[in-house]
Amino acid sequence: MTNKSAVAEKLENYLEKYQTCRAHTWVLCEPLEQDDYNLQAIAETSPVKWHLAHTTWFFETFILAKLEDNFKPFHPAFHHLFNSYYNGVGKPFIRRNRHLLSRPTVDTVYSYRENVDEKIKNLLKHNSKLSDHQREWLLFRLALGIHHEQQHQELILTDLKYNFFQNPLLPRYQTKAPKINHNITSPALRFIEFPGGKTTIGYEDKGFSFDNEKPHHEISLPPFSLSNRLVLNHEYLAFIEDKGYQKPGLWLADGWESICRSGINKPLYWFQKNHEWYEYTLYGSMPLSMESPVCHISYYEADAYARWAGYRIPTEQEWEFVAKRYSHLIDGSPHSPYHPLPQINGYEINHLFNHCWQWTLSAYLPYPKFKPFIDEVGEYNGKFMCNQMVLRGGSCLTPHDHIRPTYRNFFYPKDRWQMTGIRLAS
Amino acid sequence: MTNKSAVAEKLENYLEKYQTCRAHTWVLCEPLEQDDYNLQAIAETSPVKWHLAHTTWFFETFILAKLEDNFKPFHPAFHHLFNSYYNGVGKPFIRRNRHLLSRPTVDTVYSYRENVDEKIKNLLKHNSKLSDHQREWLLFRLALGIHHEQQHQELILTDLKYNFFQNPLLPRYQTKAPKINHNITSPALRFIEFPGGKTTIGYEDKGFSFDNEKPHHEISLPPFSLSNRLVLNHEYLAFIEDKGYQKPGLWLADGWESICRSGINKPLYWFQKNHEWYEYTLYGSMPLSMESPVCHISYYEADAYARWAGYRIPTEQEWEFVAKRYSHLIDGSPHSPYHPLPQINGYEINHLFNHCWQWTLSAYLPYPKFKPFIDEVGEYNGKFMCNQMVLRGGSCLTPHDHIRPTYRNFFYPKDRWQMTGIRLAS
Amino acid sequence: MTNKSAVAEKLENYLEKYQTCRAHTWVLCEPLEQDDYNLQAIAETSPVKWHLAHTTWFFETFILAKLEDNFKPFHPAFHHLFNSYYNGVGKPFIRRNRHLLSRPTVDTVYSYRENVDEKIKNLLKHNSKLSDHQREWLLFRLALGIHHEQQHQELILTDLKYNFFQNPLLPRYQTKAPKINHNITSPALRFIEFPGGKTTIGYEDKGFSFDNEKPHHEISLPPFSLSNRLVLNHEYLAFIEDKGYQKPGLWLADGWESICRSGINKPLYWFQKNHEWYEYTLYGSMPLSMESPVCHISYYEADAYARWAGYRIPTEQEWEFVAKRYSHLIDGSPHSPYHPLPQINGYEINHLFNHCWQWTLSAYLPYPKFKPFIDEVGEYNGKFMCNQMVLRGGSCLTPHDHIRPTYRNFFYPKDRWQMTGIRLAS
Amino acid sequence: MTNKSAVAEKLENYLEKYQTCRAHTWVLCEPLEQDDYNLQAIAETSPVKWHLAHTTWFFETFILAKLEDNFKPFHPAFHHLFNSYYNGVGKPFIRRNRHLLSRPTVDTVYSYRENVDEKIKNLLKHNSKLSDHQREWLLFRLALGIHHEQQHQELILTDLKYNFFQNPLLPRYQTKAPKINHNITSPALRFIEFPGGKTTIGYEDKGFSFDNEKPHHEISLPPFSLSNRLVLNHEYLAFIEDKGYQKPGLWLADGWESICRSGINKPLYWFQKNHEWYEYTLYGSMPLSMESPVCHISYYEADAYARWAGYRIPTEQEWEFVAKRYSHLIDGSPHSPYHPLPQINGYEINHLFNHCWQWTLSAYLPYPKFKPFIDEVGEYNGKFMCNQMVLRGGSCLTPHDHIRPTYRNFFYPKDRWQMTGIRLAS
Repeated sequence: MTNKSAVAEKLENYLEKYQTCRAHTWVLCEPLEQDDYNLQAIAETSPVKWHLAHTTWFFETFILAKLEDNFKPFHPAFHHLFNSYYNGVGKPFIRRNRHLLSRPTVDTVYSYRENVDEKIKNLLKHNSKLSDHQREWLLFRLALGIHHEQQHQELILTDLKYNFFQNPLLPRYQTKAPKINHNITSPALRFIEFPGGKTTIGYEDKGFSFDNEKPHHEISLPPFSLSNRLVLNHEYLAFIEDKGYQKPGLWLADGWESICRSGINKPLYWFQKNHEWYEYTLYGSMPLSMESPVCHISYYEADAYARWAGYRIPTEQEWEFVAKRYSHLIDGSPHSPYHPLPQINGYEINHLFNHCWQWTLSAYLPYPKFKPFIDEVGEYNGKFMCNQMVLRGGSCLTPHDHIRPTYRNFFYPKDRWQMTGIRLAS
Repeated sequence: MTNKSAVAEKLENYLEKYQTCRAHTWVLCEPLEQDDYNLQAIAETSPVKWHLAHTTWFFETFILAKLEDNFKPFHPAFHHLFNSYYNGVGKPFIRRNRHLLSRPTVDTVYSYRENVDEKIKNLLKHNSKLSDHQREWLLFRLALGIHHEQQHQELILTDLKYNFFQNPLLPRYQTKAPKINHNITSPALRFIEFPGGKTTIGYEDKGFSFDNEKPHHEISLPPFSLSNRLVLNHEYLAFIEDKGYQKPGLWLADGWESICRSGINKPLYWFQKNHEWYEYTLYGSMPLSMESPVCHISYYEADAYARWAGYRIPTEQEWEFVAKRYSHLIDGSPHSPYHPLPQINGYEINHLFNHCWQWTLSAYLPYPKFKPFIDEVGEYNGKFMCNQMVLRGGSCLTPHDHIRPTYRNFFYPKDRWQMTGIRLAS
Repeated sequence: MTNKSAVAEKLENYLEKYQTCRAHTWVLCEPLEQDDYNLQAIAETSPVKWHLAHTTWFFETFILAKLEDNFKPFHPAFHHLFNSYYNGVGKPFIRRNRHLLSRPTVDTVYSYRENVDEKIKNLLKHNSKLSDHQREWLLFRLALGIHHEQQHQELILTDLKYNFFQNPLLPRYQTKAPKINHNITSPALRFIEFPGGKTTIGYEDKGFSFDNEKPHHEISLPPFSLSNRLVLNHEYLAFIEDKGYQKPGLWLADGWESICRSGINKPLYWFQKNHEWYEYTLYGSMPLSMESPVCHISYYEADAYARWAGYRIPTEQEWEFVAKRYSHLIDGSPHSPYHPLPQINGYEINHLFNHCWQWTLSAYLPYPKFKPFIDEVGEYNGKFMCNQMVLRGGSCLTPHDHIRPTYRNFFYPKDRWQMTGIRLAS
Repeated sequence: MTNKSAVAEKLENYLEKYQTCRAHTWVLCEPLEQDDYNLQAIAETSPVKWHLAHTTWFFETFILAKLEDNFKPFHPAFHHLFNSYYNGVGKPFIRRNRHLLSRPTVDTVYSYRENVDEKIKNLLKHNSKLSDHQREWLLFRLALGIHHEQQHQELILTDLKYNFFQNPLLPRYQTKAPKINHNITSPALRFIEFPGGKTTIGYEDKGFSFDNEKPHHEISLPPFSLSNRLVLNHEYLAFIEDKGYQKPGLWLADGWESICRSGINKPLYWFQKNHEWYEYTLYGSMPLSMESPVCHISYYEADAYARWAGYRIPTEQEWEFVAKRYSHLIDGSPHSPYHPLPQINGYEINHLFNHCWQWTLSAYLPYPKFKPFIDEVGEYNGKFMCNQMVLRGGSCLTPHDHIRPTYRNFFYPKDRWQMTGIRLAS
């Protein structure tokens, strides 16, 4: 009885972690009407129902199908319908058509979730059949599945926001909006100098991290300085009022072409009514909070703003260098608001974590000697290492487990539906 | 008390007609899951929920808003959201984005329907306040609204079919499929000769008809002959097997370009599995019924097939000439199947009404001295009189009220999601 | 020697006709720089060089290849490069890529022309080897080839105009512009009534006509009236100033969608400079001549203008009915200006022929019992009988041989690069 | 008299350099027919005539307009027509429409070149009016203008090749093709190990270099190894035959999407005839030379090939590290062939310079403390630092002045019309 291996014990304790994560997804869906589960305005913003099923499929495919005796999937077609992009295990359903999957229904998808949860529970409870090697493997896949689901928890909110915004009724995800104190004044913009020098980039602890954060490696960083906070809405408004969107000299060539073709002249969710600025948020439409960090802007906009302001944005190495020195500022509190709010505190540096994802000057490329996760999950990150830029820091919608100095998020320069903001450097 | 005018009495009796129509829409939705109400794969195929709201909006806007004292709409935004194309009364919401309206919810839309039904009922019951002129006006608008809703009843089914088809699960609208007797042999193809001559085209009775069916007018028609039935699936299959889709000489220039660009080489809902042909229907996937009329083909396909077979398709005048002579064949039975089935009967001419819409050689143009409906509803038909072709006869999904020799339906030559078939002429 | 058959003699005399036609094409090219021969801004506007080669290919393919012993083409690849759309004789080169054919050079194409001209001359001179049946066949094909080349003479000018217009230098095809008398006042708009009745439509003489003008057939035409002249620039300007382009109620649904998507708000070649209106013409840029007929407008614009003015455009039958009664007004003079000018004369009806092509309400469809030309040239007209509208009357760029009451031209409703104008009817 | 400053003397000597460069452009155009000057199949491949005018405009705008008293441009419209992308000096003409500029003619453009050459000559001869500061400025701008024209000399050839290839005649730029010895065997693939370590990246000499090569800076490079030659055609053919283009696991996500959408399954200019492979070259079509380096492949293809072969491509730092150690291999010979040929020599490392541009794993980003050229020419390079990848080494079409270890070329990952090949690393 007693001779349980350490990993076997660890595995049992992992069940709670699993269940907490799965339950949180459910909590996020509580405010939804059933009609809301299937919205998809663009290929990038998947329906909530699809997120619910896909994250479940991930556990079913990458754990249950590998370890269960006589494995039978919940439904034979789900392997096709809810595969996102894992070509190694089969051909995924057309991404932009996910909203056309009225079947399976929301109810069936919840049954699917329960079914897989039950099977995972059994697997963990009855892990005595497994070898320690299998247990190690299982522990890793569980951790990956949980982190994967947490990434989708964030996407559920960002995708829903984009999809809701297409509806002139501007639905509210949260009906009770936080009071915004419009009298707050944020700290003045200041630049903190860092000496650079030899430093280590990448994840070197023992916990879970994604393959793209590794291997850690030494680089030497020239001296630089970083702004003490994100760019605020009133500062970005000054850029607009100075006709920043009409001056080609401020823009990257591709950026200029992109804003001209799309007619972009303000952040994604900003709009004007009776000469007043408003912003659509998960709380519905709100008067623009001038002291909040600007968000939902593209890399092109971040780059143009920085040039206009006489600065640049940081590289991901610079950002990580600073973040590692200020990692104590990571907020352990379980709950963030659903929109970045003005911040008042006495910190030397603000908004590093959990406010807005911060565009960096770094293309998303593999670290030297990068090794993708092995087997089918090797498609997780590596194949996106082209045409995208690295973002750091996490937004107020990012699960707290994902806030760490080495975490690399990545989007195309034109993308704006994520909660993306601007940190300046020079 | 007794001095009710004839039109006042007629009006009261109209309530039942109204309620029957509205109830039938509800019946059509009974087989749906709630997830099914919001599907829209292409701009042309609106979500069921939108159809439910739009038909209601039609009564609210074109009747209630005109006659009610202190009219207040059910919801101020619905005027924008559920306007289809009536620019005269405001700017409609973007057509292809209708699937993004998760709000109002299905429940709210059903409340909307009840609310408007109640108000219409009151209006009819308390029509004593109205002048006879107003009553005549009201009678017309009610009839128009009902016929309008009936058109959308057909669209609910054709749109749903198209949208369901995008889902690899191939959902069934009706779970209980009719038994198809694959031993039936349809009558041999035969051509019936008609002398033509002077004849009247258009609607000349007293009942309701659309503006595009009028005014009736004389034309002189050259002699012609018409096939005794529609083209059948096995005949169309012979066209495919003879490489009809690979021979440019059979096709109109625009048709050739269209099938090349879209890679079209069979009717919309046909597919092959293990070398057997199947067809997706509202009953789900079924083995192709060889003796059923071919349907879901474009004008280009109808034209190419006819050329291949050595014939042509009829003009709308020829079709109407024949249909008026065989109008006793209109089937008064309340219920058609949800897919055209093989027909066995001793009729001289078959499939004239209520099997498939039949493409004609006639562009959809105004009749001489055409007058659109007056006021805002003038946009109903006239503004589509360009680039479309006339179809006649109705399909098995068409409400029986709409089956008449003069009825003109119209679609773009490339359209295939309606139940369109081929009648030959020479 | 003397016993030449009538057709043999006719054939010899035909040589001059052929040579005149071919020489005229050359004359049209005289004002060009060599750089101008290969312009193609859109698929529809072929390069001049391609027109020169294609018309030559037509004679080579449809005459020489059929009658010459041991026929050898001038160059084996030209059959592919200069085939326009005759799928029956081979696969044509991609239409929109014609401007990429820098080879053969202009010089080579002129050699090609000379070579084919020489061979045709020989064929005609030495026709004694032919049977009378072959001579008849040859006569028809020659006539067709000449009329074909004449159609391309007009296209050379309309295509060049469109292509030149893309160049900010606004090149002049003709450097010497006609003096426009801006003091001329056109006759007031008046409507001439016609009784209609039984009438014959279509070509019934013995000369050459296209297959689409036949067979002639009787129709009965309701009474109608037709305007005494085309709509003038100042009248069209009033439509613009009354915000005609901003009123959806004036437009066909497809027309509204088309002008919104393309941002169209004036005729194709109009532009404003310092608040004055100008028009690009083959003489270069000129101040807009207010008393000239408006041209280069789409069917949608013609239709919307007519609705705005309280009228409609005529059907092709109405137009032909009138044209046959006024065919003495066809101007036999060899030369028209390259742009429609104000007209002063005492005619009862003006601009019928040779000013602007006049949009009709008639879709381009086959006449009853239409038979395409036989053999390969059957693709000439028939396969375009879908989605296009009939235009009548010819423009000032149309060769005089093509001006006749029965001639049917056809373009898509959206097309504007032809010299298209508006005749009103009611 | 004698007291000429050093810079004044340098300036006078510069005239020859200028004239040599300009004359070479002319030599490159000698084999062209006049028809060839205006070809443009895609936005990226400008017409030769446009290149001729644009390079001239560069000298006129960035030198003459700044230094000439009473400067008058050759033609006022050229400033708009021949500006490529310098928004700072005005709005450029639409890029993809350059082929529509039949005017100015080729002759006029040659006159434009002569006119500017004459003025530059005068400026240099009479530079006594200038201050030394102005002379320094002028020297820099002249050098920039020459290097700019040399870049366009390469583009003239690569663009022409792409444009010629659209013509089924497959025209030859050079009629006399080199004999290819198909019996040559290239050296076996071998990897040379490099220790990495601290190294300097970027240009540190005194001569001309582009802003993007600077500033030079230290980095520390992990150990790596680099292949001794480029990937050869027969090796790439093995990748094709192993169905490399059908295996999604080999491809970046964007790459897979790109080849699927465009139907790409071989290098740009390869084609098959009677089961034999051919390649279109500037010498016309040639049998595929199996021992020549593969070229005209995208970054995606380079990356997929490397993964298939079990390697990766190098970073730009690795490439530069090696190139600096082998810079003696730069071939000083004035003339390269117009297509990469099999190479036989005893070098340890082959194809480093002047064979094919070599894709690197490095996104095109600014070096630390990057400063764009000052004033209007600051738009030269910096604004393209997004979405593109760095290429190194130069191709056989690259002017010799541009072959140096620090030179950074850049294209989008999907681009294939440049002479791009594959160097492996591990």
